[in-house]
Amino acid sequence: MSTCLHPVPLTQVTLSDTFWAPRQEATRSVTLPIEIKHLRDTGRIDAFRLDWRPGMPDPPHVFWDSDVAKWVEAAAYSLATHPDPALAADLAEVIALIAGAQQPDGYLNVHFTVVEPEKRWTNLRDWHELYCAGHLIEAALAHQEATGDNTLLAALSRYADYIGQEFGHGEGQKRGYPGHEELELALVKLYRHTGERRYLDLAQYFVDERGRQPHYYDQEAQARGDDPAAWHGRDYRYLQAHLPVREQDTAEGHAVRAMYLYSGMVDVAAETGDESLLEAARRLWRNVTQRRMYVTGGIGSASQGERFTWDYHLPNYCAYTETCAAIGLVFWAQRLLQVEPRGEYADVMERALYNGVLSGISLAGDRFFYVNPLGLDYHAYRDEMDRYGRSSVVPERQDWFGCACCPPNIARLLTSLGNYAYSTSEDGLFVHLHIAGTAQAEFSGQRVRLQVDTDYPWGEDVTITVQPEAEAEFALALRLPGWCRQPRVTVNGEMVSLEDIIRDGYAYLRRAWRAGDTVRLTLPMPVERIYAHPEVREDAGRVALQRGPLVYCLEEADNGANLEAVRLPREAEIRPEWRPDLLGGVMVLRGMGRRQEANAGSNDLYLSNPPAEAPVSLMAVPYYAWANRVPGDMLVWIRE
Amino acid sequence: MSTCLHPVPLTQVTLSDTFWAPRQEATRSVTLPIEIKHLRDTGRIDAFRLDWRPGMPDPPHVFWDSDVAKWVEAAAYSLATHPDPALAADLAEVIALIAGAQQPDGYLNVHFTVVEPEKRWTNLRDWHELYCAGHLIEAALAHQEATGDNTLLAALSRYADYIGQEFGHGEGQKRGYPGHEELELALVKLYRHTGERRYLDLAQYFVDERGRQPHYYDQEAQARGDDPAAWHGRDYRYLQAHLPVREQDTAEGHAVRAMYLYSGMVDVAAETGDESLLEAARRLWRNVTQRRMYVTGGIGSASQGERFTWDYHLPNYCAYTETCAAIGLVFWAQRLLQVEPRGEYADVMERALYNGVLSGISLAGDRFFYVNPLGLDYHAYRDEMDRYGRSSVVPERQDWFGCACCPPNIARLLTSLGNYAYSTSEDGLFVHLHIAGTAQAEFSGQRVRLQVDTDYPWGEDVTITVQPEAEAEFALALRLPGWCRQPRVTVNGEMVSLEDIIRDGYAYLRRAWRAGDTVRLTLPMPVERIYAHPEVREDAGRVALQRGPLVYCLEEADNGANLEAVRLPREAEIRPEWRPDLLGGVMVLRGMGRRQEANAGSNDLYLSNPPAEAPVSLMAVPYYAWANRVPGDMLVWIRE
Repeated sequence: MSTCLHPVPLTQVTLSDTFWAPRQEATRSVTLPIEIKHLRDTGRIDAFRLDWRPGMPDPPHVFWDSDVAKWVEAAAYSLATHPDPALAADLAEVIALIAGAQQPDGYLNVHFTVVEPEKRWTNLRDWHELYCAGHLIEAALAHQEATGDNTLLAALSRYADYIGQEFGHGEGQKRGYPGHEELELALVKLYRHTGERRYLDLAQYFVDERGRQPHYYDQEAQARGDDPAAWHGRDYRYLQAHLPVREQDTAEGHAVRAMYLYSGMVDVAAETGDESLLEAARRLWRNVTQRRMYVTGGIGSASQGERFTWDYHLPNYCAYTETCAAIGLVFWAQRLLQVEPRGEYADVMERALYNGVLSGISLAGDRFFYVNPLGLDYHAYRDEMDRYGRSSVVPERQDWFGCACCPPNIARLLTSLGNYAYSTSEDGLFVHLHIAGTAQAEFSGQRVRLQVDTDYPWGEDVTITVQPEAEAEFALALRLPGWCRQPRVTVNGEMVSLEDIIRDGYAYLRRAWRAGDTVRLTLPMPVERIYAHPEVREDAGRVALQRGPLVYCLEEADNGANLEAVRLPREAEIRPEWRPDLLGGVMVLRGMGRRQEANAGSNDLYLSNPPAEAPVSLMAVPYYAWANRVPGDMLVWIRE
Repeated sequence: MSTCLHPVPLTQVTLSDTFWAPRQEATRSVTLPIEIKHLRDTGRIDAFRLDWRPGMPDPPHVFWDSDVAKWVEAAAYSLATHPDPALAADLAEVIALIAGAQQPDGYLNVHFTVVEPEKRWTNLRDWHELYCAGHLIEAALAHQEATGDNTLLAALSRYADYIGQEFGHGEGQKRGYPGHEELELALVKLYRHTGERRYLDLAQYFVDERGRQPHYYDQEAQARGDDPAAWHGRDYRYLQAHLPVREQDTAEGHAVRAMYLYSGMVDVAAETGDESLLEAARRLWRNVTQRRMYVTGGIGSASQGERFTWDYHLPNYCAYTETCAAIGLVFWAQRLLQVEPRGEYADVMERALYNGVLSGISLAGDRFFYVNPLGLDYHAYRDEMDRYGRSSVVPERQDWFGCACCPPNIARLLTSLGNYAYSTSEDGLFVHLHIAGTAQAEFSGQRVRLQVDTDYPWGEDVTITVQPEAEAEFALALRLPGWCRQPRVTVNGEMVSLEDIIRDGYAYLRRAWRAGDTVRLTLPMPVERIYAHPEVREDAGRVALQRGPLVYCLEEADNGANLEAVRLPREAEIRPEWRPDLLGGVMVLRGMGRRQEANAGSNDLYLSNPPAEAPVSLMAVPYYAWANRVPGDMLVWIRE
């Protein structure tokens, strides 16, 4: 079986489960309309009319184009699987505006057309010119695939061609590359769609040129008359340009930038067969997932620079863990998974999706987190906000952000989730995510339909009915999640011995499949106690709770304030309980913990005896669902 | 026995112990020469020549006068107990310069004489005009008492008189008060020295006027053409001016300011008998010591605003706990102690002195802490410094600071420490601090000499030889430290039953004392495990170690990095061990703890089993001595 996979496109996948399908519906009916309203209200849509003139207020910002582009992409994915005339009308209007903003030479960027036209391509390091181009290309591809309308894609192809003329090693070309990566992966997508090799070459050039000496950002700064050292002492880690990418061993700098670069590296490597590039991506993957990733799949420990810090530095209360970074981790994991179907990629993809990504949007789909900390002292946060009107981490969901990257980013991931569930290889069909619904796949000339019935992530059983058009031999590769210790599989009721057919986290069921063959995958989901590596200082002596793919947390709404006063002894039994009434229907975890009691009769701040403890009934809710009730304290890592 | 005490002046006290006496000597021989050099090098001394002119660099800053004043005060105290011709010469030069800077009308402030003369008294809120005046008065009093030379005191008395004309309720007077308190307590000192009631009245006015409506800082801002709300939204908590002082129940704002105000409140109340003012001070005392004080006696939890935060909010790693604030707590405690000799005041005074104050200066006397956190992740600190060149908390001792309040402040406390050890009342003599040496006291016409022999704080025994000039009946009141569970006292070898003679933490030994009578106080010093109130989130599940008055910490130098991986089980035996070779001679604490071990053979960041633990020999050193070796991690509150 070849290990080069291709995602089953979202148009061939339906999700009909009770977990994701309602989120997709909320994205269509609530999130996307809210977002287009914010985009309109803040002038981001009208900006494409190019009628801003010097002296007018609110000049279009350098990253506005990308906010609109991500919305277009999300809306296109949604329309591809669910008709919505109002959404289609909004989308058509936006598409026309964007395409109309293209300049005669192919250039397409609002800010550098109307605000600072003389500064085109003069500061790739700080501004988001090439980043916006990447998002517009992704939007155009999504729009073309959803609607068949080629308007935007034609415009963006021209723009990509223009960029290809401007950048490269040729005479008269700039040797620059994106300060905020994104265009790299978009160009590979464009190549895959069009078959035009020049787009892949351009992506490869951007990836290869990054971080080389003499350093383009030095030269570019000097050309502007700036001192390169004035920029953070030339610490180019922030944008992963401190070294050529093949020499990078650790994930550094702005986490979202890093994820988009690493995704682009995998894309380029997958298409060019460049093993050294793929190996660099694998090394970075190990660094992120074995040293710098929260148990929620959140990444980026520090708010200052929205960045990775160092190995095992995973503070909880001040965790930055930007929603976009977890989304980027999903993108990267999915790409690695297509290159080599290893469970570790799918496990991380699932961890981020069900936890650190999904926490970024409210259950109703109307409010957002930019950051996703793993603990909250609500009093401390409120005090900071009340005194200073700001906080480096804002753990209350917001309607919108001045830097509005996260809301449309989560929308485009949720509306394209079908893309992440299945892949085909030359002679097989992979199931990566267990979501009730259907998939229609083609590979090696075979057409196979899968019908998946499951209550995952709440229930343990996944029933897959296989419907090949005609009887055919192929491998059905089922992901056995890393969190599951004893998976079981039956085919047509007969137990399958997994021993010989498991490879890298997938069970390969190879046989001649006939219509109606039924596979039953059972994934026992006892409540798991999770412990962090001993070098993770903030988690020492603490336990996190997980059941299936879901990480849990304690909230003040259920357990009172000051969750540090609570501990969950190792021997405490924890049992799941289905609560259809709560948070849209969740499995909560219940158990008896111990809570420090106030010292009756003493006002002493320091005592000779430890505070007395009393039994306390604790209830944990899935992390993704936190902060959907009254604001209050929250904690993932509980003292044990 | 009257409960109104008077400190035995430092000139009547000698310290000859191995703990404090060497620190006083280091202050004289190392700290004061270093500080005057820094004061000279930074232009602070020459500034008093008043030859700065507009357009010249380095205009004298609004608080420079106070840095010099505190050095003068420290030098004067040192000279009062130890001759030092070089120091005396430096002091004489500085005194002449300061006195020479006085203006014909009595005004004495460098900045507002040469830099912004038109702005005199226009911004009491932000600038440090009256604060500097207070420190200059304290310096003048110390200088006069040390040398008998009246030059500076005459100048400052004139300045105080001038201030008294400018401020008050009278016609043409400003209704202002210090933005940074200090002058209040200085004026009471001046009153006590001179007997001039007008200084007490002025102090009382400043205390009483504070925080009243209409708010002076509003009016003052408006007079300058500023919007009062532009200043932190008029949140006058920062400078304890949010309410009249008698209505303040919680310690708010800048911790040093608060300590100086509260000290001044006690001073005024002590002299005026104002019970409502004293009760306010007691209320604030309870709030600080029962809710907002670290176990080291450090106060001020937040770096932003160098301020108190809220009850039980005592984060360790980012604790601000400015050295000056702990010093201020000593000032305040000592003042309350003179009003009512209660052990709780002396206990806090001792806690701050031996821990959170003394940590502020290196063992050699040459380097300083502005802040005194209770934990350090050295890697995190270095990363912040390397990336951004700054850190809100700098846990590495520095030569000097741009805002140089702490170094001369700790010098003046160390050189005047004799002032804090003994008090007289109408018919008795109090021993507050157990320090080897002598005291010569006069009360009710009696002259009594005490000879104290002890190894405190390392040893448990304190032997006091009483030498009255003639046999006399009086009470010798010995403080029984709050940390000591079973103190014992003998007089001339006979055990004294303490039951009937203990009141509020003091043992009152009343008898007809004869020359040579010997009191032996035994203060058993087992290692104590200290626990924090259950509402202190950061200390939950943790233990601090204390022996006698000393709080201990783990340092990387002795225990390796990542001290969060270490725990000290409740049953672990901890034994003291005298280490004459270490840190100038310290009692270390040793015991077997447990340390999380790295997972052999696994790179997993998250695990199903808790990290294995192995026994580890732990060694704790006194907190005051930390950061005197190689930089590294440190921890006070250890996981239990």
